Amino acid sequence: MNTIRTPSIQENETLPSWVEGSTRQSILNFVGAVTKEGNEFVPIAERIVVTDNDGTLWGEQPMYVQFVFVRDRVLELIPHNPEWRRKECFRAILNNDAEAFVTAGDKGLLDILKEFGETTEEYAQAVMDWLATARHPTTGLRYTEMIYQPMLELLNYLRAHDFTIYIVSGGGIEFMRPWTESIYGIPPEQVVGSSVKTEFVDRAGVSVLVRLPEISFVDDGPGKPVGINQHIGRRPIAAFGNSDGDREMLEWTTAGNGRRFGLLVHHTDGDREWDYDNKETSTDGVGELSPETLSEAGEQGWTVVDMKADWTAIYPARKG
Amino acid sequence: MNTIRTPSIQENETLPSWVEGSTRQSILNFVGAVTKEGNEFVPIAERIVVTDNDGTLWGEQPMYVQFVFVRDRVLELIPHNPEWRRKECFRAILNNDAEAFVTAGDKGLLDILKEFGETTEEYAQAVMDWLATARHPTTGLRYTEMIYQPMLELLNYLRAHDFTIYIVSGGGIEFMRPWTESIYGIPPEQVVGSSVKTEFVDRAGVSVLVRLPEISFVDDGPGKPVGINQHIGRRPIAAFGNSDGDREMLEWTTAGNGRRFGLLVHHTDGDREWDYDNKETSTDGVGELSPETLSEAGEQGWTVVDMKADWTAIYPARKG
Repeated sequence: MNTIRTPSIQENETLPSWVEGSTRQSILNFVGAVTKEGNEFVPIAERIVVTDNDGTLWGEQPMYVQFVFVRDRVLELIPHNPEWRRKECFRAILNNDAEAFVTAGDKGLLDILKEFGETTEEYAQAVMDWLATARHPTTGLRYTEMIYQPMLELLNYLRAHDFTIYIVSGGGIEFMRPWTESIYGIPPEQVVGSSVKTEFVDRAGVSVLVRLPEISFVDDGPGKPVGINQHIGRRPIAAFGNSDGDREMLEWTTAGNGRRFGLLVHHTDGDREWDYDNKETSTDGVGELSPETLSEAGEQGWTVVDMKADWTAIYPARKG
Repeated sequence: MNTIRTPSIQENETLPSWVEGSTRQSILNFVGAVTKEGNEFVPIAERIVVTDNDGTLWGEQPMYVQFVFVRDRVLELIPHNPEWRRKECFRAILNNDAEAFVTAGDKGLLDILKEFGETTEEYAQAVMDWLATARHPTTGLRYTEMIYQPMLELLNYLRAHDFTIYIVSGGGIEFMRPWTESIYGIPPEQVVGSSVKTEFVDRAGVSVLVRLPEISFVDDGPGKPVGINQHIGRRPIAAFGNSDGDREMLEWTTAGNGRRFGLLVHHTDGDREWDYDNKETSTDGVGELSPETLSEAGEQGWTVVDMKADWTAIYPARKG
């Protein structure tokens, strides 16, 4: 961790939305160490980076985007399915009660899944149709515009140095895959997430996969290293997250041999985004980063991004 | 499927162990159609090929290699664990009864898994140690020498045309990943297989994943399209297999839009390898290819490789 190097002119042009200082420098130091000849050099095939999505690559307040998607689907269909009103999760939706909805969690989502009998391809289409029109309740932006410009720059910088980037999210794998390539440059095979079981079915002579109302895998907390091992089969050398759900992923990544890099995005900017430490303005239970995890970051040498101080921009500049 | 093209000189130098004829030509036609400008062209990112392993890339008679590995581990440890002798699966091993062992199947493997409490890294090392010394009972070859030369040529030919190749096997994902890159050029993140559950554990301050005696996923038969979707998130355009367990994978692959390619390796060569249709010389239940699947291949236009007639070599020439 004591590699000293002089940033080149090229590097001063990289990460333009990152304020010059120790946070930005820790990224440059890591990438320099593992990509230049020397005893910390890492071959291209092992330059695996894993990153959380909600709260790390895009916004998650006042409610995870996937929950909003589910809510909007339910609201659209509930006039035709009045019996849904009796279920706890659906009631939370109708009351616009984000915290009750988060509390209902997986069970609530399964109640909803039981009402749909979609193929994986129909589900992907529903996600894309929704993203094309839905807007965030307070910013008025499309959700795919509420991605973090500095993180896009970080992904590009890593790709330019031959890293392979995987999303590893507690969100649904099938919810993310339809759009991660166009928005982040991350193709579907590099997306790891929570999943429901699917079943191979011959539907009128055509082979399809149908989504079942049964959880297959929860890719959160201690599930993240499990999901990474299952999908990639290698221990990454860098991991990015923003909440307690990313803790084990960062622990497992940085416990490997050789130079490693852990990064936590701390949401500190109540003016430009959300200040998660102020519970009056952010939803309890969404993206919680506890004092214990922040303390562990200090002990482990993980970089903690102070969004307010370290980033000159939050979202990409709007085109046109 | 009526693309007409003249093979170039370069293509006559490819697939040297494939006899010139309709089988070899079907491969050249497919690759030509999807890689040359035209209405069947497929962009590089979508050039996904999936291939079975046991019986498609390497030998599987008289018993799946992974079962032999498990048997050898048990035989090594049974003097210290005499109570194992009472379990059905272990008895089959001690009696060298391949068919009873195959019948015991997953349950038998779980009985064995309960006796080990390994990390994923310890298991990978055990696999590599065993492969370095184990030899096939009749050929005397190492198992990694009993790979099919014509299939290696096919993988290389596809890679030269920017295809990405995934193994999709009923075998254990963790059993294959340690060696598929050095043997086939297929890295761990491109291996899909059956798996046990793993658990994230802090072992004396080091984060590890421990293998549990519980099946997570069976990547065989109708599980293969499910595994492909889970890992890759795209429908492949070509699939290779050799048995009834590959049927749904070929169906799902070739049901997609645009030009598709299915290939089944039919084990017909009792002199150079095994004639599976002769049950006196091959193990019942290992790599079964039923008349129904062969008949479906005809209806669907899948290529069926007649190993005896279509391949001039079986295994790679031995070095030195």
